[in-house]
Amino acid sequence: MISQLSINATRQGLHEITAEVAAVVNESGLREGLCTLFIKHTSASLLVQENADPSAARDLELWLNRLVSENDQIYTHTNEGPDDMPSHIKSTLTASSVAVPFVDGRLTLGTWQGIFLWEHRRTDMQRNIIVHIGA
Amino acid sequence: MISQLSINATRQGLHEITAEVAAVVNESGLREGLCTLFIKHTSASLLVQENADPSAARDLELWLNRLVSENDQIYTHTNEGPDDMPSHIKSTLTASSVAVPFVDGRLTLGTWQGIFLWEHRRTDMQRNIIVHIGA
Amino acid sequence: MISQLSINATRQGLHEITAEVAAVVNESGLREGLCTLFIKHTSASLLVQENADPSAARDLELWLNRLVSENDQIYTHTNEGPDDMPSHIKSTLTASSVAVPFVDGRLTLGTWQGIFLWEHRRTDMQRNIIVHIGA
Repeated sequence: MISQLSINATRQGLHEITAEVAAVVNESGLREGLCTLFIKHTSASLLVQENADPSAARDLELWLNRLVSENDQIYTHTNEGPDDMPSHIKSTLTASSVAVPFVDGRLTLGTWQGIFLWEHRRTDMQRNIIVHIGA
Repeated sequence: MISQLSINATRQGLHEITAEVAAVVNESGLREGLCTLFIKHTSASLLVQENADPSAARDLELWLNRLVSENDQIYTHTNEGPDDMPSHIKSTLTASSVAVPFVDGRLTLGTWQGIFLWEHRRTDMQRNIIVHIGA
Repeated sequence: MISQLSINATRQGLHEITAEVAAVVNESGLREGLCTLFIKHTSASLLVQENADPSAARDLELWLNRLVSENDQIYTHTNEGPDDMPSHIKSTLTASSVAVPFVDGRLTLGTWQGIFLWEHRRTDMQRNIIVHIGA
C-alpha cells in the first residue's frame, strides 16, 4: 500500500509530520507492520528526532547550518542559489528514507520521538513524501 | 512479525548487537526476507560498521566526539546535561532505522560487518530497539 | 525476493546505479512495493542524490573529503592505508541501507533523483549490494 503526503514547507528547518504519517497508518487498516517513508527531493530530508522541547530542534538547525555553511569557496554548483548546494550536503548527512514499525495500528515511536521533514532551502517549498505500508 | 530488543548500554560508544538481531531472525522461522531495526530514542542510534578491529570503532567515536563537542556556545537545550544536545546531533548524523536482508535464515552482512547500537549519552541507559521481520 | 548487484567502483566518489536497481525492480514482475538496498561494505555507502548536474556530485565529494580528512592525528586504525579510516567515517555519515517505493513497476524517484554507490576508498573495488523487493 503506497500513498503520498504533500507537505508545504514554509521555512527552512524541521516540520513535524508525525500526525500525517500516523493517519496514513490508520487508514491502511493494517494493525501491525512497517511504515517506510521516502522523500522525493534532494534538498530536503527525513528525520526522527525529539519533538518535546523546541530548543532541541533549534539547536540542531543552528549546528547543521554552521557545519554546512553557505558561500563556501569549495562550491561550484551555485546557479540555483547560495542555499542549494548546502541543502544537498545536509540531505546527504541526514536521511532520504526512514522506517518505523507499527503495532496495534500505532507507530512504535518513543515517548518524545516525532517524524520530521527537514527543509534545507530557505524558500517556500511543496515537498512530496511517498509512504509505503507493509505487513 | 515485530519484537523488541532491550539493550543495556553501559557506556558511551558502540555496542554490537549482531548476535541479538540474528537470534530474532532465526526465531522468526522465515528463511528469506528483510530485517528492519528502529531505535525508540533520540540520543542513541543504529549503525552497520566494521566489527573486526576495535581501533576502527574507537577512532570513529573519537572523531564524532570532536565534530560534535559538548559545551558548544551554540546550545540552548542544556537542561538535560552537557551530553544531551550533542547526543541529538550525533543521532541525527547516523541512523534511527537500518534494514538488512536475510537469506537462508542468515543476515546478509559482509564478512567484517556488525550491527551496532551507538549510545551517545555518557550515562548507563536502557535502550529499546523494535525489530520488524518481513517476507 | 532478494538479489545481488555487483558494482565495479573504479574510483573514489559517486557511481550512479539507478538503472541497475530499476532493472531488478522490473525483473521482479511486482508492480507495486518497496525496494530496499543494503551495501555489504563499511568503506562504501549508499545515497539518493541529484543526478542532473555533475557539479553537485563533485562539490559533495569535495566537501566530505575536507570534513573527513586523511592523515588526521586522531586515527590509530591506519594499517589498511590512509584512506581506510576516513572511509569508515564517511560511510557512517551516509547510509548502509536505503528504501525506495515503486509504483507501476517504476521507482518513485523524483525528477532529478538518482541512486548512488559512494565509493570512499581510492582504489578500484568490487562492491556488492543486496536488493530486497517486497510487496
